[in-house]
Amino acid sequence: MKKHNFSAGPCILPQEVFEKAAQAVLDFNGMGLSILEISHRDKAFVAVMEEARALALELLGLTGKGYQALFLQGGASMEFLRVPYNLMKVDGKAAYLDTGTWASGAIKEAKPFGETVVVASSKPDNYTYIPKEYSIPADADYFHCTSNNTIFGTQMKSFPETNVPMVCDMSSDIFSRTLDFSKFDLIYAGAQKNMGPAGTTLIVVKEEILGKTGRAIPNIMNYQQHIEKESMYNTPAVFAIYTSLLTLQWLKNLGGIAAIEKLNEAKAKLLYDEIDRNPLFKGTTVKEDRSNMNATFLLADENHTALFDSMWKAAGISGISGHRSVGGYRASMYNALPIESVQVLVDVMKELENKI
Amino acid sequence: MKKHNFSAGPCILPQEVFEKAAQAVLDFNGMGLSILEISHRDKAFVAVMEEARALALELLGLTGKGYQALFLQGGASMEFLRVPYNLMKVDGKAAYLDTGTWASGAIKEAKPFGETVVVASSKPDNYTYIPKEYSIPADADYFHCTSNNTIFGTQMKSFPETNVPMVCDMSSDIFSRTLDFSKFDLIYAGAQKNMGPAGTTLIVVKEEILGKTGRAIPNIMNYQQHIEKESMYNTPAVFAIYTSLLTLQWLKNLGGIAAIEKLNEAKAKLLYDEIDRNPLFKGTTVKEDRSNMNATFLLADENHTALFDSMWKAAGISGISGHRSVGGYRASMYNALPIESVQVLVDVMKELENKI
Repeated sequence: MKKHNFSAGPCILPQEVFEKAAQAVLDFNGMGLSILEISHRDKAFVAVMEEARALALELLGLTGKGYQALFLQGGASMEFLRVPYNLMKVDGKAAYLDTGTWASGAIKEAKPFGETVVVASSKPDNYTYIPKEYSIPADADYFHCTSNNTIFGTQMKSFPETNVPMVCDMSSDIFSRTLDFSKFDLIYAGAQKNMGPAGTTLIVVKEEILGKTGRAIPNIMNYQQHIEKESMYNTPAVFAIYTSLLTLQWLKNLGGIAAIEKLNEAKAKLLYDEIDRNPLFKGTTVKEDRSNMNATFLLADENHTALFDSMWKAAGISGISGHRSVGGYRASMYNALPIESVQVLVDVMKELENKI
Repeated sequence: MKKHNFSAGPCILPQEVFEKAAQAVLDFNGMGLSILEISHRDKAFVAVMEEARALALELLGLTGKGYQALFLQGGASMEFLRVPYNLMKVDGKAAYLDTGTWASGAIKEAKPFGETVVVASSKPDNYTYIPKEYSIPADADYFHCTSNNTIFGTQMKSFPETNVPMVCDMSSDIFSRTLDFSKFDLIYAGAQKNMGPAGTTLIVVKEEILGKTGRAIPNIMNYQQHIEKESMYNTPAVFAIYTSLLTLQWLKNLGGIAAIEKLNEAKAKLLYDEIDRNPLFKGTTVKEDRSNMNATFLLADENHTALFDSMWKAAGISGISGHRSVGGYRASMYNALPIESVQVLVDVMKELENKI
């Protein structure tokens, strides 16, 4: 039986993507070869890479606007390091917004590169909200933020107006909602939420911001090097990129980001309405900053834990245990999660109320 | 029809690996979930990671000898940078042997870290041999070499005796031949030759050599950080690691490295004997340094190119066009390539001789 998969990432992808990816592992494009055994220089894979790069820009509305898309290895945590390497000037300054574990990780990697200003942090409140009152130094080389905080269940609903280049880690909500993506100069995202399996990272960068640091950049860390080599500076993660392309194609066929956003809003409303209505549960974040991707909540009375856990497991639900930093539950509702799965969870929550 | 796949990498893997990997994309371990949608923290994947790390050490004969195995992202090109970060002392010195394109790439990434001594280079002869007469500075922090040169078709048949920590890029021949691997202090290898699909890199490191540089190391670049987190400092490349485990299990069932070495020697002998016997062909490297993994050869008369190309394509052979740096042909005979495929190529070479 297929599970209702609320995993925070790696996470559910469309069933048709699983089926096409499995077929490609056996025989890719009728070539008589597995996708795992073809050269990345084979024209069939070069076409995959080109389409994936172009489609990522198209879905974000950034085609023809001076942006390049790359699919690199290392996860968002590698971009924590690539960003200051490529953007922080020698004796420069960077501004960071601290909204959670990943934002904090990005700050740590940037510090050795220059003055790293944390413009605001919600850490003293265990990251239960997104700080909104802060100013970004006008002389910063860039401003870095995290659009969605997977662990804490918060999401930036608006972004600051600034003349400083804006860098955003969108790992856990890219392709899930409409934004004016042209406000950002650099966006990066680990694939393993809304885009594909673990093993590749999408980087979308406005070319004009690069090459200005006066810093020697190692080849493997240099975005300009990767752009020049069309994302094949070294052997790319072939299968992860192909599967990401399948997922982006699925999204395009569905109507793109605007279409999925409506579905994501309906899923989030369904679950948050129940969390707020049902006296047995309570959310962990301030309401206005609630993430549409990751809903974090607690049982009002922890004595109900064993019963609730047995009930959702019996209903075929998987992956809703909360992160150890927050406890309780976390239901991740990425693009590919059907609303029917959310309904099953809500039904279990109601059933618990009826039993107690 | 299944091709005879001589691709230089990504390359052929065992057919049973393709079948098991495809099945796992549909349903992993009967969990009702794809391997692509499970959390890397799920106990089923934690078990995969643990077994892959342990089995890599076991096959190399390094269990219980103070080594740790990691599966990271970035490819060998990322290790070109991680190695000096982790091993070159502040104001330190490193020694490199330059035997080809990848060795040269490793040298470039190391240079900004300190004095980088190239102890010998075969570049003036287009890397057609492995330099053997050189001395390694006794005060070097480490000595770096490349065991097999995929592009040029050469392979180190012996390694220097030195008291300096020895680092080896074994991307294209790891798990293919018996060596005393305990002579090496750090071995790294991109998976996409003998170990798995593109997207993960095996690093085998003797723990005692780490933590001695006096250098601040970014978290994502720090081997000690990755060891402490059991290769899950950040989300690992789940599918690439699982498929690598399947390949390592296949190798173990076959009898391990000693068993595959005999098959690899038989395949290489079959092809090189024909290259040497057949007056239409000539090898590109000195004989004593010929790689058992990548055989590079030319047509003695380029006028036969069109005919030969049409013949091997008709025979179902794929991936033997030479790298642009060498020209001609390159037949890569990694672990999973059956000797029958080599026989098909040899038969085509003989057939060409008969036709002319």
